[in-house]
Amino acid sequence: MPLTPEQQAEIDDLRASPRPTLRAVSEGMEAHLYTAYPVLDHGFVRVIDYMGDDAAITQAARVSYGKGTKAVSNDEGLIRYLMRHWHSTPFEMCEVKLHVKLPVFVARQWIRHRTANVNEYSARYSILDREFYIPRAEDLAAQSTVNNQGRGEALTGAEAERVLEYLKGDAARCYDHYEEMIGQEGQQGLARELARMNLPANIYTQWYWKVDLHNLFHFLRLRADAHAQYEIRVYAEEMCRLVKDWVPYAYAAFEDYRMGGATLSSKAIDCVRRMLKGEQVTQETSGMSKGEWREFMGVVEG
Amino acid sequence: MPLTPEQQAEIDDLRASPRPTLRAVSEGMEAHLYTAYPVLDHGFVRVIDYMGDDAAITQAARVSYGKGTKAVSNDEGLIRYLMRHWHSTPFEMCEVKLHVKLPVFVARQWIRHRTANVNEYSARYSILDREFYIPRAEDLAAQSTVNNQGRGEALTGAEAERVLEYLKGDAARCYDHYEEMIGQEGQQGLARELARMNLPANIYTQWYWKVDLHNLFHFLRLRADAHAQYEIRVYAEEMCRLVKDWVPYAYAAFEDYRMGGATLSSKAIDCVRRMLKGEQVTQETSGMSKGEWREFMGVVEG
Amino acid sequence: MPLTPEQQAEIDDLRASPRPTLRAVSEGMEAHLYTAYPVLDHGFVRVIDYMGDDAAITQAARVSYGKGTKAVSNDEGLIRYLMRHWHSTPFEMCEVKLHVKLPVFVARQWIRHRTANVNEYSARYSILDREFYIPRAEDLAAQSTVNNQGRGEALTGAEAERVLEYLKGDAARCYDHYEEMIGQEGQQGLARELARMNLPANIYTQWYWKVDLHNLFHFLRLRADAHAQYEIRVYAEEMCRLVKDWVPYAYAAFEDYRMGGATLSSKAIDCVRRMLKGEQVTQETSGMSKGEWREFMGVVEG
Amino acid sequence: MPLTPEQQAEIDDLRASPRPTLRAVSEGMEAHLYTAYPVLDHGFVRVIDYMGDDAAITQAARVSYGKGTKAVSNDEGLIRYLMRHWHSTPFEMCEVKLHVKLPVFVARQWIRHRTANVNEYSARYSILDREFYIPRAEDLAAQSTVNNQGRGEALTGAEAERVLEYLKGDAARCYDHYEEMIGQEGQQGLARELARMNLPANIYTQWYWKVDLHNLFHFLRLRADAHAQYEIRVYAEEMCRLVKDWVPYAYAAFEDYRMGGATLSSKAIDCVRRMLKGEQVTQETSGMSKGEWREFMGVVEG
Repeated sequence: MPLTPEQQAEIDDLRASPRPTLRAVSEGMEAHLYTAYPVLDHGFVRVIDYMGDDAAITQAARVSYGKGTKAVSNDEGLIRYLMRHWHSTPFEMCEVKLHVKLPVFVARQWIRHRTANVNEYSARYSILDREFYIPRAEDLAAQSTVNNQGRGEALTGAEAERVLEYLKGDAARCYDHYEEMIGQEGQQGLARELARMNLPANIYTQWYWKVDLHNLFHFLRLRADAHAQYEIRVYAEEMCRLVKDWVPYAYAAFEDYRMGGATLSSKAIDCVRRMLKGEQVTQETSGMSKGEWREFMGVVEG
Repeated sequence: MPLTPEQQAEIDDLRASPRPTLRAVSEGMEAHLYTAYPVLDHGFVRVIDYMGDDAAITQAARVSYGKGTKAVSNDEGLIRYLMRHWHSTPFEMCEVKLHVKLPVFVARQWIRHRTANVNEYSARYSILDREFYIPRAEDLAAQSTVNNQGRGEALTGAEAERVLEYLKGDAARCYDHYEEMIGQEGQQGLARELARMNLPANIYTQWYWKVDLHNLFHFLRLRADAHAQYEIRVYAEEMCRLVKDWVPYAYAAFEDYRMGGATLSSKAIDCVRRMLKGEQVTQETSGMSKGEWREFMGVVEG
Repeated sequence: MPLTPEQQAEIDDLRASPRPTLRAVSEGMEAHLYTAYPVLDHGFVRVIDYMGDDAAITQAARVSYGKGTKAVSNDEGLIRYLMRHWHSTPFEMCEVKLHVKLPVFVARQWIRHRTANVNEYSARYSILDREFYIPRAEDLAAQSTVNNQGRGEALTGAEAERVLEYLKGDAARCYDHYEEMIGQEGQQGLARELARMNLPANIYTQWYWKVDLHNLFHFLRLRADAHAQYEIRVYAEEMCRLVKDWVPYAYAAFEDYRMGGATLSSKAIDCVRRMLKGEQVTQETSGMSKGEWREFMGVVEG
Repeated sequence: MPLTPEQQAEIDDLRASPRPTLRAVSEGMEAHLYTAYPVLDHGFVRVIDYMGDDAAITQAARVSYGKGTKAVSNDEGLIRYLMRHWHSTPFEMCEVKLHVKLPVFVARQWIRHRTANVNEYSARYSILDREFYIPRAEDLAAQSTVNNQGRGEALTGAEAERVLEYLKGDAARCYDHYEEMIGQEGQQGLARELARMNLPANIYTQWYWKVDLHNLFHFLRLRADAHAQYEIRVYAEEMCRLVKDWVPYAYAAFEDYRMGGATLSSKAIDCVRRMLKGEQVTQETSGMSKGEWREFMGVVEG
């Protein structure tokens, strides 16, 4: 469990003290506030604050489109319309602030999403805790043989054991030396900003991450996708669960149009039309490369 | 007064219905929520939502700097430290959403601040109201004779009268024609997206504008400054009043270090040092251009 | 023609003086540099500078993906792969700087694309020219009767004549008064920053606009689309022509996957699969709304 | 030396083949193109491409400010004026693309500057090289005793030896295990995206980094500053040298107004004024905290 009793007591305190507000309130999100949901072996995601709800999206859209939006009479229909036609600004009107604890190699992927606000725990000022991500046996995936980026089956037997031994042993030894270098009785100690360089990328860090709903959806589309690395995907999936309770209409539209959707090229559209007219289209007659065709088959055949 | 009775009733309703929340609450900002504060002749600023308070800034900083921030024991001192040393990310942890009604020529300046979220009333979909900014007599400033950008004294007499007559007359005529073009009984009417091109830049538009506190401070530093155009400055000043009640410590630090502060060049610092040692420094011996020297005198002599 | 003889001479000069460089050179783009391509009645687009070419995209991708990219052997295939899988960062490695002259109401749409650098001609400092966009008769579209946002057929006869008369007359009168207000012999003149408020939205402005290729493609996808307003679409189309000569592989991939592509929702994908199995799917059995079904039919039937 | 003979030959080739261009050319930057300038023990910075020069900055400013800028007759004076008055957009009109090789813990600081384009070598796809940053003896700084963030004197003797032994030994062992885990003859091998988690933060990575001049100056102001961590400062200093040759006027203005400048708070300005009138101001009578006063003395006394 990633929290100390003191931290848990602090969360319980925060959750015990509701205060009145005139702002938009999402009951679904209030139920999650501050609670740390575990991810991986030592990580977590927890919501620190949020702004807006489903109605805030349509309210902003109605400012923009005025009488133009009246044709779509209800919030759910309007949100689906906005999502389908790539209107991004109404979704930017909602904001969420998360506290995330995650391994450094996951943080390095995550931070590539630039349109967000971040305050990360600083290893220049402070000392990192002795906590490392060690995969479960079933997550020790082999390199894929068909895909440079992907994973194959889990390693087994002696190879799996050896990997776990390396990961645990190296993390422990590197951390022991990190501690020794930053100082002991009667010694000056190496500057923290230097000592941290000895720590491997599976050490945990933490940050506050604040993002608007449009950019969060973009993050989730890429990171909750089946092709994302497992260790970031589990964070994205946990966040999907939170977003679903926060803005249920927006999340449902996101699921239908983005997560479950697919983009067809003009060549692919042409093939669909020919196929619907009864033509037998093959990769050779499609005008697509083998890779494109394989992906296209994945869409139309499932 | 820029609001209809229906709009005022809606605001009163929203203000009458507090709901419990577990989020951070700023009492100062709750007092302002939804209320439309008048700006110029038909404009307003009102707060629709906010996230965070002074404590949210230091909370994020303490995640970042961990034990490193303990030396500064209280929130106010830490916020001053962060502002003084240009730490921007903790201030990004607060967010505010405003509803603003403003003339188009002001909106065109405002939108140049790119790091914000905007939903503007669309004149492609909807019909703009017949509301134009007409300056008060005392705001009919002449072109400055010393500064290409600035304003001189207010126009008076016949010249002032003529200007007001032009502004009012042209606005009225252009709007009449706009209305006629978009359609009358038995006619198709010109597309709204085309008809709007006939409207002058003092017509009012409105938008939802959402921004984090760091970027809001940047906006306010430039737009509440004495050199900003009067018509945007009055919006910035109204927003300063709101921010002061929202995050009082952060606003006080902003006032001291940004609004009331000044940046000296290395040449200017050198001059200050020489002057403090008793040397009589002149523009000629300062190494500065006349313009720089004049601005420098403004800082050291007040 | 939007250029003065002096401006044309300056362009000719710039085009007559090649200099050696060690940077990547795009022959296709060199042929366009500085030339002002007319758009609308007084507008233009011209390329001032560019960085990178098709090879710069794949070069950056090969830094990122290292040996992983070798499977795709050539630049064209790799660029198609990157576009298909939504890899945005390699396309960000190309940059272009344009000089654009455009009506203010077009500029107001354009500037909503925030990820770009802009220097616009300032009507606070300087005096705008007497140039207004007056649509051609065939572009005087009526409001669409089926779509709040769209255009119908062109107006004709007396109604068209009246519209043109209004647009021309109001622009001329507003500009006359603008000139008078900013000053005549023996008068102070109203500050320029105020006088400009009398100018209608079809007056021309100009700016330097600098953007990376990824964000430019995003702009073009939205603004060269059939649903974009005609007056911004003609700029986008002119820019498409320039981009095609600059980075031909990237542009071809953009055309296939973005401009000519379509995104299907999970419901739509399900319908395609059922239809390919021979099922007669109707709107009622599709699970889609009428609007969604109509758009879906547009994709699969063309 | 960080380059292989093949890489050096490639650079020599690129530098041997000038081509004609009609774009703005900076002779100072042409002299640096492609050359890898060493930083730290295995790192480098090299310029891959650039857009614009000093004249491009003033050209953009003259579009914006039109006749308003004529008062400042020459490029150098105008650039100083723009820098002094915080005009950022003209500086955004220049762009540079760098290829940087740097330790991961430096990359983690660097990436916090969000307004840039990045393509980093991917350890999901590819195998990292066995190259680690090992500080020189004189750079093995102790933790500062006065500042949580800073460094003190270099460690010496047995403590220094032990630190170097740990850094070298742990890096070597972690890399050995990384290699073993990703596979040997007859084994599947752990997925690269997992194996990389065993590598410490002093391993080298590399990326293409593209940024505009305004944001580059912001980066350099923070990272070439005396308070920046030494290991990133040496990159910033190398980049300063390149920028100075690229846009000499802009760099000189940056040095005077930003790097060598200082911001005074309103309290500090008040103190300067009192001191210039002959008053003996002390920390107690200044209204400043001890920390502020110490920093203020650093500015006025040097």
